[in-house]
Amino acid sequence: MLPVDLPDTVRDALLAPLVDHACHGVRRDELTRGRFELLLNEGGSPAPPGTTHFDTPLGAAVRRWCAPVLGLEPHAPPPIYLSRRAELGAAEVNRLLLRASGVSAFLVDTGPEGADLLTAAEMGSGGEAAAGEVVRIEQIEQDVAEMAGVAVDYLDSLGDELSARAARAVALKTVVAGLCGLGLDPARPSRGAVLAAANRRLADPKQPLAEPALARHLLWSAADVARERGLPLQIHAGLGACDAGPHLADPALLTGFIRALQPAGVPVVLLTCYPYQRQAAYLAHAFPHVYVDVGLALAHTGAGSPRVLAELLELAPFHKQLYGSGCRELAETCHLGAVYFRRALGAALKARLDAGEWSAADAARIAHMIGAGNARRVYRL
Amino acid sequence: MLPVDLPDTVRDALLAPLVDHACHGVRRDELTRGRFELLLNEGGSPAPPGTTHFDTPLGAAVRRWCAPVLGLEPHAPPPIYLSRRAELGAAEVNRLLLRASGVSAFLVDTGPEGADLLTAAEMGSGGEAAAGEVVRIEQIEQDVAEMAGVAVDYLDSLGDELSARAARAVALKTVVAGLCGLGLDPARPSRGAVLAAANRRLADPKQPLAEPALARHLLWSAADVARERGLPLQIHAGLGACDAGPHLADPALLTGFIRALQPAGVPVVLLTCYPYQRQAAYLAHAFPHVYVDVGLALAHTGAGSPRVLAELLELAPFHKQLYGSGCRELAETCHLGAVYFRRALGAALKARLDAGEWSAADAARIAHMIGAGNARRVYRL
Amino acid sequence: MLPVDLPDTVRDALLAPLVDHACHGVRRDELTRGRFELLLNEGGSPAPPGTTHFDTPLGAAVRRWCAPVLGLEPHAPPPIYLSRRAELGAAEVNRLLLRASGVSAFLVDTGPEGADLLTAAEMGSGGEAAAGEVVRIEQIEQDVAEMAGVAVDYLDSLGDELSARAARAVALKTVVAGLCGLGLDPARPSRGAVLAAANRRLADPKQPLAEPALARHLLWSAADVARERGLPLQIHAGLGACDAGPHLADPALLTGFIRALQPAGVPVVLLTCYPYQRQAAYLAHAFPHVYVDVGLALAHTGAGSPRVLAELLELAPFHKQLYGSGCRELAETCHLGAVYFRRALGAALKARLDAGEWSAADAARIAHMIGAGNARRVYRL
Repeated sequence: MLPVDLPDTVRDALLAPLVDHACHGVRRDELTRGRFELLLNEGGSPAPPGTTHFDTPLGAAVRRWCAPVLGLEPHAPPPIYLSRRAELGAAEVNRLLLRASGVSAFLVDTGPEGADLLTAAEMGSGGEAAAGEVVRIEQIEQDVAEMAGVAVDYLDSLGDELSARAARAVALKTVVAGLCGLGLDPARPSRGAVLAAANRRLADPKQPLAEPALARHLLWSAADVARERGLPLQIHAGLGACDAGPHLADPALLTGFIRALQPAGVPVVLLTCYPYQRQAAYLAHAFPHVYVDVGLALAHTGAGSPRVLAELLELAPFHKQLYGSGCRELAETCHLGAVYFRRALGAALKARLDAGEWSAADAARIAHMIGAGNARRVYRL
Repeated sequence: MLPVDLPDTVRDALLAPLVDHACHGVRRDELTRGRFELLLNEGGSPAPPGTTHFDTPLGAAVRRWCAPVLGLEPHAPPPIYLSRRAELGAAEVNRLLLRASGVSAFLVDTGPEGADLLTAAEMGSGGEAAAGEVVRIEQIEQDVAEMAGVAVDYLDSLGDELSARAARAVALKTVVAGLCGLGLDPARPSRGAVLAAANRRLADPKQPLAEPALARHLLWSAADVARERGLPLQIHAGLGACDAGPHLADPALLTGFIRALQPAGVPVVLLTCYPYQRQAAYLAHAFPHVYVDVGLALAHTGAGSPRVLAELLELAPFHKQLYGSGCRELAETCHLGAVYFRRALGAALKARLDAGEWSAADAARIAHMIGAGNARRVYRL
Repeated sequence: MLPVDLPDTVRDALLAPLVDHACHGVRRDELTRGRFELLLNEGGSPAPPGTTHFDTPLGAAVRRWCAPVLGLEPHAPPPIYLSRRAELGAAEVNRLLLRASGVSAFLVDTGPEGADLLTAAEMGSGGEAAAGEVVRIEQIEQDVAEMAGVAVDYLDSLGDELSARAARAVALKTVVAGLCGLGLDPARPSRGAVLAAANRRLADPKQPLAEPALARHLLWSAADVARERGLPLQIHAGLGACDAGPHLADPALLTGFIRALQPAGVPVVLLTCYPYQRQAAYLAHAFPHVYVDVGLALAHTGAGSPRVLAELLELAPFHKQLYGSGCRELAETCHLGAVYFRRALGAALKARLDAGEWSAADAARIAHMIGAGNARRVYRL
């Protein structure tokens, strides 16, 4: 799996257990081909007639790297792969792929929780790993909105619930980009604006949050809780973060909010970020409280992922990069995140060693930092 | 021309005839050095005193790959190249370069038509290939504006003419980015706004279209015609698409329009896109009706083009990528598009084969898809 | 330092003396570890507890390439490096690193001048090189604002002082991105708007300029002076140019201003630009008066810099690229700029030679152009 001719210490560091600091629960139900294909894609539509979502970097990666985990030859055709998957059953497939990922701790965003997804604890037991919960603040808001009656109660409950949920969590996470992009006004909204937005919000609480003032209030409330409890705040950026256009999920747009948050000392963790990983790396370079990963972009770019990670490595400090699979729905994405992280980092280290740029000792040390050490420090594991 | 040590099936697939789904007619007239140099550049200005547009990636590529087609040594100096070009004459040079490109069908944007440019049929006969016409909707609009008297007639004629021209075409194309960038309001404009804009437009119909409401009306009218006739809509993005700045031609800005067009099922083909090919790839990934190429960026980036194509391959589904030279004016750009497409895709395939990422059978199959198969399906050739 | 197996002519061209057309004076004072670490980073904050700014691409590069210049083994640990630095003393360290950079002329932005920074003349004598001064127009404005009493005097003095300082300079430079990003209105502001802004400005002249109309007036005044004196105008873009977010320092945003300046014939030199080097390359391609470098991004991206330079080479004409270290504060950044420029350009040339894309003669000629020839022409050295 790794480049040949790596020094043993570097190879060992790359193969050491990872902390997957940003993932989701994978599905426990059996998947038809149609359903499996839909989950290979971020867009939610079937591939056009005559084509298949298997003809993508992710589809090719599944056939290459997941097929052997299920006991098949590499490059197994899709029908064979799916038939083997069905034969083993989802529980066994999940167990095999989660364990193959070589992860010692999963930090699981439980926002999209549902009966069909493994819980954080189940991710841990499936993967023979520790597990921690990352609470998604938009999910808390949704829960509170559906329970609350009037605006004042809603706002009180929101603060209480954020605190209560944070008490059991290793981090808070926001998907605010999905609401209005990341170019939101970085200032705390006024109490009046928040109350007015809350009143509009409660007129139809089943709908997802669509009030910018409330989104900002939620973000700042989460930042307050994170500060009190010493938790990081994860922010989803880039790939898949904003339906209104990838450019609106450029993490550079967060600069104002990041600066406003700096005095609070809350670690901000930028997730995924692709194709704006250089902008994310810049923020991790310039701000002492900013951390980054490329998350699900590893599995989605597959064979092309070494270039993506290489761009993150151009400017991001080594103590600011984290490993996250960003896995969603398919246990395959959990395994592929780990495979491509190790391959991509291995390729970058080998290039630096071959060029005489780094010593082997530094390369091994940095691999340990990015793979697990930084996450242990930032999340206090 | 291709990397050594490729499996024969992959090599054959890369050398198979291409469908050049997005090109322009090349010039039939003889070119002075000054004129030739101007055509090497997108900016329209001569190189500063003491410099030459031959000192560019495209200039170096002409000397490397086109010189041998004209019977010269690779890297022939510019005066020798131009002298040989004059000696052979434009007709023979065009014939040699178009044939050398190994293209079996040219889909030709006839928008910039003029007596000095080969027609679609002439591109086909020059290159011993089939030919189809892509109609540029802004050219139709210009023709209609110059003929129409009053706004209502203008709007009626516009619809009629779009339908009539589409009946003979394989696709419609827009260069709307050149008018106001790609961040236009994606909604259909109101009839009132369109009529008001049409009245302003007709006050000086010789001028190019500069009314956003009319541009949006034209785009939606083209989408309607494309839906009725089952034709794709090509949209020029990136390199050369918008004089007001490359950032305004970022295809990510089209997300709203693309989403609005999704129910109609009209294939949207994003052309060129450089340096925003990753954003284009994301759209091709997320939307079932979006296709992409990097077009003229292949010839313009020359020796650097493998990196450009590699970035497209990071996320774009293999059934969504097309080959287009985007060639303009110089037959050299037609040949160079094909050379660098084959070299860049060959390098990407070789890297994946060497890394054990793809099987040779998949690599060959994907090369056929991107080089010709996808275009045959999308344009129903 | 260079790739092996380069033809001698190409190797000689890469090792020939450089013109560093855009640098700053380095510090003359002794530096504690804390101070040195701060200067390794653009953000101005210490690394988080338990981490060090040495764990960055720049930190690794210092240990790899500067340690041997100070007589240490490559990859020397930070305490050994800093102890050796203290032992030699700042004057000797500066002398060693500036000379090792192999630069024959430094063009020094004297804007951040202070007693602790070497002057342009001292940079020259330290590096056994010629030296020229680049005047930073925002520094002139600050000096004038602090001296002037009323708005009319201030505006008169500004014009006079720009002319006077330009008379001794090789170029003018603006850091306008730091004030309001590069998306400023490209038109000359009206006299009325300028006077009103000047009155507000003079109410608190010790503050840095924060009036967009005045910033535009300053920029256009500088352009006028540059035109009169035949001087280039340097514009800092990208990395470190705008605290409000890297996206606001995208040089693409300058397109309107660049176009407005084209008739004046003033060369515009885009500095640093990272991670928007492709947008900068596009502008250098499309406009005859635009030039580019990647400056301090070379030292900051270190082992990753070949990719950065490679992207500039995709589209930028060879007669439009310049070498600049962008060095700041630490003489290490001066040396590392030169090291990584030579390594990155060497890697790009080797790849082109190996692929048969360029001849060795062209490769050598282009290396001379980018390393020194273009700067000699543009700055009339």
